[in-house]
Amino acid sequence: MRPFVFVNLAMSADGKLSTIERRQIKISGNDDFSRVDMIKSDADAIMVGIGTVLADNPSLTVKSPDNIAKRKNKGLDQNPLRIVIDSNAKTPPDADILHKGEGPRIIAVSDKAPQEKIEALNEYADIFVGGEEKVDLETLMEALSEYGVKTLMVEGGGTLIWSLFKSGLVDEIYTCVGNCIIGGENAPTPVDGEGFIKEDEFPKLELLSLKKIDDGALMRWKVVKDKKH
Amino acid sequence: MRPFVFVNLAMSADGKLSTIERRQIKISGNDDFSRVDMIKSDADAIMVGIGTVLADNPSLTVKSPDNIAKRKNKGLDQNPLRIVIDSNAKTPPDADILHKGEGPRIIAVSDKAPQEKIEALNEYADIFVGGEEKVDLETLMEALSEYGVKTLMVEGGGTLIWSLFKSGLVDEIYTCVGNCIIGGENAPTPVDGEGFIKEDEFPKLELLSLKKIDDGALMRWKVVKDKKH
Ligand SMILES: NC(=O)c1ccc[n+]([C@@H]2O[C@H](COP(=O)([O-])OP(=O)(O)OC[C@H]3O[C@@H](n4cnc5c(N)ncnc54)[C@H](OP(=O)(O)O)[C@@H]3O)[C@@H](O)[C@H]2O)c1
Ligand SMILES: NC(=O)c1ccc[n+]([C@@H]2O[C@H](COP(=O)([O-])OP(=O)(O)OC[C@H]3O[C@@H](n4cnc5c(N)ncnc54)[C@H](OP(=O)(O)O)[C@@H]3O)[C@@H](O)[C@H]2O)c1
Repeated sequence: MRPFVFVNLAMSADGKLSTIERRQIKISGNDDFSRVDMIKSDADAIMVGIGTVLADNPSLTVKSPDNIAKRKNKGLDQNPLRIVIDSNAKTPPDADILHKGEGPRIIAVSDKAPQEKIEALNEYADIFVGGEEKVDLETLMEALSEYGVKTLMVEGGGTLIWSLFKSGLVDEIYTCVGNCIIGGENAPTPVDGEGFIKEDEFPKLELLSLKKIDDGALMRWKVVKDKKH
Repeated sequence: MRPFVFVNLAMSADGKLSTIERRQIKISGNDDFSRVDMIKSDADAIMVGIGTVLADNPSLTVKSPDNIAKRKNKGLDQNPLRIVIDSNAKTPPDADILHKGEGPRIIAVSDKAPQEKIEALNEYADIFVGGEEKVDLETLMEALSEYGVKTLMVEGGGTLIWSLFKSGLVDEIYTCVGNCIIGGENAPTPVDGEGFIKEDEFPKLELLSLKKIDDGALMRWKVVKDKKH
């Protein structure tokens, strides 16, 4: 058992999440911002990699008062469960994700994580320990499922998304394509890591919807599950 | 004066032109194949970088008998003028682009290109010499314009496309997004090279059209020219 996992990201027209400096960039517009806030608010949990925490310091909170009110009316916390994938417990203890907004957090670390760092983070978050070097994502998913997480939104970055695809743990992917070119052979992309080599390893997608949003496009893809990746 | 320059490419849903091995991959389907053959057949010239010649050995010929017949009826060569951007004249003398199909070719080299290689290629193609290290694309564009080229299609790869964007030489870009994930931080992307750093350097695009094609999507973008890049 694992949650339904969907990825949401914004890329430039040439498939970049950011510049080679890995700074946070405004790629999409206000309509996409509202859409993302809505699907985040509907999710039980939201996940990012430590690379994104260190680069962007996101809070991952629900922003719109309406969406917050809807969650409250359902008896939910103001924000979905926030999860950081962080082998070495490098999340800064003053990171926004640990302090902004109410609701539970999990820092998922591997067996390598230093005990004193775990303890420092444990003041603000629950700690999941699993995996020898990197966080064991499959075991984490099972644990999240037991924790009651039915839908999990992944906000990036490309290194984490690669591992999720590699392990066959992605069900859907929303891609907002912004109206700019960023370029750069070393710029982060939606799916980084090692990459697939053979055509029959490529995760196959089905285009569930395609529409204009802001000055760009929004694609919603379903990962076709007729084969094991 | 320079030709109208449009880029055409096919990328995976995660913005890759190929795998990390840079092998040629079938990303789009038959409808896109026909579309590309048509716009190629309507262009005066078609351009690729030497990286693409060495990786894919493309012939860049017009494929459909109908499109060929239309060109012939207009008194045109069977194929648009084929151009390779190749500083060091590394195009193999037996490359398909030099032998398959009729019509003129230009190999564009820089001042560095060895004379004996130039002479070997000159048997099959005209040679443009310009640029100290890399081919000087702006001067080449002027020469093509004088040669009568009004519309130029660029088929890649990402390194050449980067230079064209960097020099403000792109007018439109067609991106066919295929229904697969390739992944890989080192896989080629639509715009590679150094990459832009600041938001105000990013070429801004206008989405001219968006539609489904095969099992994916086709975007046609116009490069907004209100500022100098
Ligand atoms: N445009 C967008 O929508 C968007 C969204 C998010 C991020 N971004 C951009 O993406 C960039 C950050 O992405 P990133 O790829 O560098 O980092 P990331 O995917 O956020 O984090 C990757 C890190 O997670 C840790 N990790 C632990 N276990 C893992 C596992 N099993 N699989 C994969 N990773 C695991 C690894 O570091 P350790 O081993 O040290 O733990 C790994 O380096 C930034 O530039 C950010 O601005 C853009
Ligand atoms: N999916 C698609 O639509 C598509 C289309 C085309 C290519 N591809 C893929 O793209 C990959 C090849 O792309 P690539 O980026 O490696 O190579 P590329 O863009 O085809 O060629 C780049 C090379 O052109 C030469 N060059 C000379 N003057 C230049 C200038 N002013 N600016 C830029 N380049 C200049 C440089 O080599 P020298 O200095 O040695 O001359 C440079 O390395 C292959 O994997 C291919 O399969 C995919």
